[in-house]
Amino acid sequence: MKMKNIKSPEDLKLLDNDELVSLSNELRQLIIERVSLNGGHLASNLGVIEMTIAMHYVYNTPEDRIIWDVGHQTYPHKILTGRYEQFHTLRQFGGISGFPKPVESQFDPYGTGHSSTSISAALGILEGRDRIGKDFKVIAVIGDGAMTGGMAFEGLNHAGHLKKDLTVVLNDNEMSISRNVGALSSYLTRIMSGNLYRKLKKETKNFMEYIPKVGEHFSKLAQKTEDTLKYFFLPGILFEELGFNYIGPVDGHDIEKLINTFELIKDNTSPTLIHITTKKGKGYEFSEKNPCFFHGVGPFEPDTGEAIKNQENPSFSSLFGQSITEIAEKDPRVIAITAAMTEGTGLTGFSESFPERFYDVGIAEPHAVTFAAGLAVQGLRPIVAVYSTFLQRAYDQLVHDVCLQNLPVTFAIDRAGIVGEDGPTHQGLFDISYLRHIPNLTIGAPKNGYELKEMLKLSIRQDSPTAIRFPRGYITDEMELLSFGSLEYGKAEVMKEGTDLAILAVGQTAFPAYRAAMKLEKENHSVCVVNMRYIKPIDTELLSALAQRGVPLLTVEENMLAGGFGSLILEYLNHIGANNAMVKCLGIPDAFVEHGRQDVLRNIYGLDEEGMYKAALSLIESVRR
Amino acid sequence: MKMKNIKSPEDLKLLDNDELVSLSNELRQLIIERVSLNGGHLASNLGVIEMTIAMHYVYNTPEDRIIWDVGHQTYPHKILTGRYEQFHTLRQFGGISGFPKPVESQFDPYGTGHSSTSISAALGILEGRDRIGKDFKVIAVIGDGAMTGGMAFEGLNHAGHLKKDLTVVLNDNEMSISRNVGALSSYLTRIMSGNLYRKLKKETKNFMEYIPKVGEHFSKLAQKTEDTLKYFFLPGILFEELGFNYIGPVDGHDIEKLINTFELIKDNTSPTLIHITTKKGKGYEFSEKNPCFFHGVGPFEPDTGEAIKNQENPSFSSLFGQSITEIAEKDPRVIAITAAMTEGTGLTGFSESFPERFYDVGIAEPHAVTFAAGLAVQGLRPIVAVYSTFLQRAYDQLVHDVCLQNLPVTFAIDRAGIVGEDGPTHQGLFDISYLRHIPNLTIGAPKNGYELKEMLKLSIRQDSPTAIRFPRGYITDEMELLSFGSLEYGKAEVMKEGTDLAILAVGQTAFPAYRAAMKLEKENHSVCVVNMRYIKPIDTELLSALAQRGVPLLTVEENMLAGGFGSLILEYLNHIGANNAMVKCLGIPDAFVEHGRQDVLRNIYGLDEEGMYKAALSLIESVRR
Repeated sequence: MKMKNIKSPEDLKLLDNDELVSLSNELRQLIIERVSLNGGHLASNLGVIEMTIAMHYVYNTPEDRIIWDVGHQTYPHKILTGRYEQFHTLRQFGGISGFPKPVESQFDPYGTGHSSTSISAALGILEGRDRIGKDFKVIAVIGDGAMTGGMAFEGLNHAGHLKKDLTVVLNDNEMSISRNVGALSSYLTRIMSGNLYRKLKKETKNFMEYIPKVGEHFSKLAQKTEDTLKYFFLPGILFEELGFNYIGPVDGHDIEKLINTFELIKDNTSPTLIHITTKKGKGYEFSEKNPCFFHGVGPFEPDTGEAIKNQENPSFSSLFGQSITEIAEKDPRVIAITAAMTEGTGLTGFSESFPERFYDVGIAEPHAVTFAAGLAVQGLRPIVAVYSTFLQRAYDQLVHDVCLQNLPVTFAIDRAGIVGEDGPTHQGLFDISYLRHIPNLTIGAPKNGYELKEMLKLSIRQDSPTAIRFPRGYITDEMELLSFGSLEYGKAEVMKEGTDLAILAVGQTAFPAYRAAMKLEKENHSVCVVNMRYIKPIDTELLSALAQRGVPLLTVEENMLAGGFGSLILEYLNHIGANNAMVKCLGIPDAFVEHGRQDVLRNIYGLDEEGMYKAALSLIESVRR
Repeated sequence: MKMKNIKSPEDLKLLDNDELVSLSNELRQLIIERVSLNGGHLASNLGVIEMTIAMHYVYNTPEDRIIWDVGHQTYPHKILTGRYEQFHTLRQFGGISGFPKPVESQFDPYGTGHSSTSISAALGILEGRDRIGKDFKVIAVIGDGAMTGGMAFEGLNHAGHLKKDLTVVLNDNEMSISRNVGALSSYLTRIMSGNLYRKLKKETKNFMEYIPKVGEHFSKLAQKTEDTLKYFFLPGILFEELGFNYIGPVDGHDIEKLINTFELIKDNTSPTLIHITTKKGKGYEFSEKNPCFFHGVGPFEPDTGEAIKNQENPSFSSLFGQSITEIAEKDPRVIAITAAMTEGTGLTGFSESFPERFYDVGIAEPHAVTFAAGLAVQGLRPIVAVYSTFLQRAYDQLVHDVCLQNLPVTFAIDRAGIVGEDGPTHQGLFDISYLRHIPNLTIGAPKNGYELKEMLKLSIRQDSPTAIRFPRGYITDEMELLSFGSLEYGKAEVMKEGTDLAILAVGQTAFPAYRAAMKLEKENHSVCVVNMRYIKPIDTELLSALAQRGVPLLTVEENMLAGGFGSLILEYLNHIGANNAMVKCLGIPDAFVEHGRQDVLRNIYGLDEEGMYKAALSLIESVRR
């Protein structure tokens, strides 16, 4: 049976092992081909093909529930669960999502996107099952990277306590998005390499060396340490201590073995963790060699593995990385921290130039932020490089550890605004709203590379925290050329004067605003364009002047309208008693933004030149009326 | 030497063991006496007295840094580090804080308040130390409850990776705030009880029972399981697997042993965890018997341990607990979830009535929220009972797991608004701002018990998520009597008509608003008072009508002004083009709110009757001018 004839996992069960292997090859080809055209997550999907086949072979989905942690590794799952025909629409607006989505298929019982949620969700589903008297299996599939997220540990801890029949599949590829770090990861590696004993012997020797100092504890400790040493090589003891049966490691590319193992544990009656080792990027030479590049990738040439570049210009991420590397050369206090996103946040160069001033803490944003606060206490200038959507994970730490203590931590918030094809779990549309009410925090929104770099420099000089939000995308030459005066703390940039209307723009939205204004200029409307540069503190001088002149205002932002930048402008105008100002706010209304290309989404939400032109014209006309 | 003569930890080092024991008794008496007057955290402080003495005896503070997780157990630390004279001002406005505070003392190198941050912060300080070439010790002191927070695991994981000389003191009292749950906790108990082997034997037997089914895996697994079994009783292996040297358990009330042990590990060169067992509430019979009650407590009679009740009325928390117990009796779908706050959130009764429908997940808010989402997927109606400040920990899970999937989870947000003596880490002043931009979420703010109960009922009937925020405090008879019409979804309550001004009040602020309006009435000002009841969806009909009539509006809320309720009103008025409405917003300006009694703080921020009266009068007068 060919892949295209697999209408549901039921069909898999008719195949023998050779046919399943042949199916895995077909899946691999289709995924490489489609991702090379649409972009997407490649390496992780190539790594789980056999595992996905084996799970759907053994388990009775959709009745049995498979919860995919993070969820970007669900392409084979989607193809095998009735979405072969739609697979060409992957990640396109109106097409199928790159993540599990309950509204898309009954085979996706739970939506994911951010890391480390699967065990908690699966445990809830399992407890819910027992509450309503149903009988099905619940399986969480989680990578070793996601396992470093504290939430996964919270889930394990609770599951071990409840002692129910949860199955956790640990997909161990020694990678999160970047190469994994952390004691857990090295523990897993030691299990696999089998040389736990040898390593431990050395470690224990070091430990023993300071023991002779000790008085009464000595003999007991020494004995304990030796005992521990001997049995340290037992795999899985860490999970067993948390109440899980541990099974593994199992070769994640041997379908037959996988099927046997899943059959073995299928009827478990207590928490069971099955440790599967996979190779990220498996079966495509370029992604095997460079799984980081092929983690999340744009369109590429399948025969060569070369990216199809639309842009010769640097991205905001790479310019950020370059800038802080330069700043760090002059200022030894600068430290960079990432939560498993070295490449994505543009820090590869920094990590090579300053390995001792660079920390990848694993998928652990809460720890990253508090760790940065600790560094700042010692007079350093840590920069936490993080996507807008992932910083949501550390909101409380940002409030308490950094802002309440008023520590000079810089948050370089990448992927702020409309992010695109990854969809609602990855859009950066909340940060202005979840940041601007936090005292002590400076918030900047550079429109181009120059401003990003200058804001970074200023943040390092300050004795208080700064958040700098910048978009996903490239910095074009036009963006650098459109610069009107040097950057000053808390001050906006007037890109264009005008008297009929002022557009107040945040970050990159300044460019479509500028183009819209130029178009209106040709139609004899005089439109001022302000690039705010800083959201907090806001440029009160400029705003007061505009309010005094009674110029109608159009605010534009890639953020929720609720509590966002426009809302801030309304608050300020109200505060100064400019109640009769005419203001219109452009941004994201009260709904989640689905997946689709950035330009498609910007058009839908009126956040491109055309949308701003129309909104500006309508505001001018309504004022004239 | 007497306690009052201890000016700094240096003085401790002159004392012999008997004197240290006598000092511990003095500390105990002082703390019991002071907390009986000021209220505060009693049981946890009584548990760490000997440990605190021993640490300050061995370590060279403030040069060596002790980071206290959560920080409410720092009363003995404060007394021994030069704050004996100020100790009577504990938790009072302008007095010393109940938590570590760098601005208060150089002996408090890092501020804490929320759980599980100490390892991350300590690790940052330690790395910072090495970066600037200093040489001091860094010690994180963390309870077994806080250790269940995922962030603590993230910190351990990173510390085990960095392999530096971090010391983690695990203060194991088998309690977080409520009695501990989770596999980790039972693991620690097994270490202490020494019967790990016996328990494991039974567990393994169960596991073995399904192994016979297996084919090739059988013999290998059986062998492994047996091996594991034998060595499972080795204490500390879980931490050793994460790269820590494990020492313990040590009796936490034996000063001499503690000093010897700290001396032993003081010069460690790699991560070391010392496991100390303590008794929460130690040395005061009432708190030993009932550590939950004496965790955080109001004034009490020291001779009897009886609370000094100012109020016969129920608190919002207890009314919440009672309400959902009643609701649960009629609706089997209702499930209650707490993150280690059974008593604080009023769930004790529910947990007794419905033990099988009640989950205490430990200090693990992110897991609690995602676990609830999983339950909701199965058609249940989970209610997450959580303080406003602690829900900050699960902001991302609230956005993605609950609201993006539009699942019917109810958040019962206790301690919203000004909370009082616990200070900035515990005020509930951000929730409106961090919630109202999240799509699909209903937000209610009941002013009294009736509204709380009705909102809970409505939330259970809805197929989407609801957040209900209510304050710390008691529900007086007046609050129940002032009720004007039954509660309706999304609809406000007009408590009083009026034409000169309308006060739009959120939750409990409706009462001072009402009293202020009555006072103004006597002075011939006609003031309408609206209790909004729902913040989202907002009562657009009422707001439009008010806007149309051109009534000036005064918004009042116990929340940040930035992005809060007032801001929402401005957004809505702007949205409907009511730009010339006259609005004034009362709330918390852009700064953290310190500790102090609720009434003191409300007075300072103008959020009491007097403040509202003045603001209303000034607005009426400015309109007339």
